Amino acid sequence: MEVRHVNMQGDNREPERPAHPGIFPAREADKSDRQPAGRSVDFSVSVVLPAGGTGERTGLQTPKQFCSFLGRPLISYTIQAFERVSWIQTIAVVVAEENVDLMMDVVRRFQHRRVQVVPGGSTRHRSIYNGVLALGEKEEEEEEEERPKVVIIHDAVRPFVEEDFLYQIAMAAKEQGAAGAIRPLVSTVIATTSEGYLDHSLERVKYRASEMPQGFTYDVIYRAYQRCSESDFEFGTECLHLALQYCGTNAKLIEGPPTLWKVTYKRDLAAAESIIKETLSRSACVVTGGSTEAVSLAEALRKAVGALEMELDVVPDLTGDNAGYLLTGWNFIRVSVGDSWLPEVEAVLVALKEANRALLHPPVVVWVRLSSADEPSVSGKVAEPAAIVDLASTAKLGNILLYGIQLHRSQDAGRWERSVLKVAEMASALIRGRSPALVGQLLQA
Amino acid sequence: MEVRHVNMQGDNREPERPAHPGIFPAREADKSDRQPAGRSVDFSVSVVLPAGGTGERTGLQTPKQFCSFLGRPLISYTIQAFERVSWIQTIAVVVAEENVDLMMDVVRRFQHRRVQVVPGGSTRHRSIYNGVLALGEKEEEEEEEERPKVVIIHDAVRPFVEEDFLYQIAMAAKEQGAAGAIRPLVSTVIATTSEGYLDHSLERVKYRASEMPQGFTYDVIYRAYQRCSESDFEFGTECLHLALQYCGTNAKLIEGPPTLWKVTYKRDLAAAESIIKETLSRSACVVTGGSTEAVSLAEALRKAVGALEMELDVVPDLTGDNAGYLLTGWNFIRVSVGDSWLPEVEAVLVALKEANRALLHPPVVVWVRLSSADEPSVSGKVAEPAAIVDLASTAKLGNILLYGIQLHRSQDAGRWERSVLKVAEMASALIRGRSPALVGQLLQA
Repeated sequence: MEVRHVNMQGDNREPERPAHPGIFPAREADKSDRQPAGRSVDFSVSVVLPAGGTGERTGLQTPKQFCSFLGRPLISYTIQAFERVSWIQTIAVVVAEENVDLMMDVVRRFQHRRVQVVPGGSTRHRSIYNGVLALGEKEEEEEEEERPKVVIIHDAVRPFVEEDFLYQIAMAAKEQGAAGAIRPLVSTVIATTSEGYLDHSLERVKYRASEMPQGFTYDVIYRAYQRCSESDFEFGTECLHLALQYCGTNAKLIEGPPTLWKVTYKRDLAAAESIIKETLSRSACVVTGGSTEAVSLAEALRKAVGALEMELDVVPDLTGDNAGYLLTGWNFIRVSVGDSWLPEVEAVLVALKEANRALLHPPVVVWVRLSSADEPSVSGKVAEPAAIVDLASTAKLGNILLYGIQLHRSQDAGRWERSVLKVAEMASALIRGRSPALVGQLLQA
Repeated sequence: MEVRHVNMQGDNREPERPAHPGIFPAREADKSDRQPAGRSVDFSVSVVLPAGGTGERTGLQTPKQFCSFLGRPLISYTIQAFERVSWIQTIAVVVAEENVDLMMDVVRRFQHRRVQVVPGGSTRHRSIYNGVLALGEKEEEEEEEERPKVVIIHDAVRPFVEEDFLYQIAMAAKEQGAAGAIRPLVSTVIATTSEGYLDHSLERVKYRASEMPQGFTYDVIYRAYQRCSESDFEFGTECLHLALQYCGTNAKLIEGPPTLWKVTYKRDLAAAESIIKETLSRSACVVTGGSTEAVSLAEALRKAVGALEMELDVVPDLTGDNAGYLLTGWNFIRVSVGDSWLPEVEAVLVALKEANRALLHPPVVVWVRLSSADEPSVSGKVAEPAAIVDLASTAKLGNILLYGIQLHRSQDAGRWERSVLKVAEMASALIRGRSPALVGQLLQA
């Protein structure tokens, strides 16, 4: 079997890409916070990601692994989930011959560093085998062991896999030769007669759904494919079954979190997008410039968004210790009090750009302008709306979404409170919506 | 077994609620358009909707059938799916004792007419049995047959079931005694050893996932429950299995569309909301008032939103033949050219209110104001933003979402085209987003 592979791995320099928290699906299982930091493995682990699917079940023209979420294809999110894990070496992404160029482009655009693009075979098993073989072939100059000790096999369309679970699979695979994720059955499974009638139903407790990731020692998965039949290559679906049949290895089964779920139907694309957006929208950083009035507005906003399930951190600027927000935050609210708002907002945009923050997701910047009650509307002055439209257009080219909200000072405590609440609601809606169509607008609180 | 039931069925007057298309999940299967209009059954069919779940798997406090989408709980969407079907008589909704009042309130608020609220039992089977018994008890004065010929059992958390499929289930149930929906298995099913290792995997082609709806003749489901054991009531999950075991009835199995899917995990709530929003956002009605300039802008918008996968119908007003849009449309764009925009927008809001259009979903009204190039911004005049804010606040109380977009005339063809495209993008984003936080804003194109 010929395996051409395209090595897209970077050289040995440290990646220039900033640290980032990635997408943790704490929405469904708050595991990411509890995972043992730095728990590592002392053997080599690489990954095969079959990404050759045609997306039949979504009913879309684009295979689902190439569908975009906030401007980035699903496959890149899945790769990112593995690149976050320090002890994973190479990620062999196996794609159909006709998608090799597309995949190489994804790797380049999103600066993936540990990916090897491998052309796939005619079936899922042939593709996985190609990936396994590619992981076993290293350049001649490398003297160390050529083959990884453990190979993890995952799906390109399960982007929310977590480090803790990968660790469990890798450890069990090394010990047992094979390991796989399982989940409880959601529906009763029934056997049908050939005429389409109920034959019998299975006892749910005895069965599980077999999911991904699965892990194997290189030897087990390699031998299983060496020995299996053409019919297995053609019609088989379950790697664990091949390991059992051809190597006598009974896989260790580990129950995974619901986040292992696979993007299968079109509705799953919506669910994935919603999880990604929600994960990016849990917190925002409010930059005040330090003026008393801005700080007190920021504190009022902080209380108001608490009820909207968002957390705000209030900082005077993004330098010194606060520069960390540029590496971890996805949402920034710049409160401006005086007339010098333009350089203040520009400073946030420049800082985000310099931190290369917009590579993986579009950060949101909401400019909140506090103006005098006697100054009826900033829109009355033509210069300002035009300036924010221009600024937003430029920012959008760099994948940063900029919106404006204007609010007026008020001596009336009740009115002021309502205005602050409205700013909080609008900022929260803009951050959660991340709509490119609404950038550059100056909304009125 | 004592069955108290609370009859919420209306009297025999025709419902005052307007006709409405409901939510057709054509997103995943475009069946709704192809379904044979008016295909009816000549026997009585009623429904049991067990809605006693506690929502454990979503990890939410509110059971998922009571989670709100655009201000309406999921259970109401599911009831609506059955109320759309002319040949369905009674929908027995079985809820936990402590949720009876909540459920009655839902029935009242959304004017459901064919619902009977039944207190549930301690397990799913006891709850379904309570529903079946409630359907068999009719008031004394009714002389006709007391029991429906066929009972359809469905889940409260599968809101996207379609009339065509209900018809198939009802017909097969009447002929065979029992019928059930099946779907292909998404994952391989495996048997585990007691120590957590792989025992064997099932051959996927021989098995199916058993889904809802299921249908039974009243006799079969009643007898099955009369005869079954306490252990069945306590631990059983599959009604089809009871029909087989206690009545010797082999259910006919029918493959259903993917839209039968069950809201199980938190991610499914996001998917459901996205389907509902998308279904409401496929088309909009543009009201021009008839002026040449407004009509030509409306036509330009119609072309522009085509690329955004939305269809526009352009009409001069909402009277006469065009009044039909008030009964079927969810989105209205009012193009105003002169200074008389306020009464024009008010007229649309009043018409929607009179049509009782905002009962089931919030309709969106986007006011597009075309102004002269030399009139820099409508916001310069304080009166207008204040007027639209007030109008939007009032509309929101009636569940109608009002937004404004301002665009300027331009002699420059390229500039004009860009402005029109921007209006189309913003209108589309507002309609799809349906964000209550952004109502009353006057956006600038």
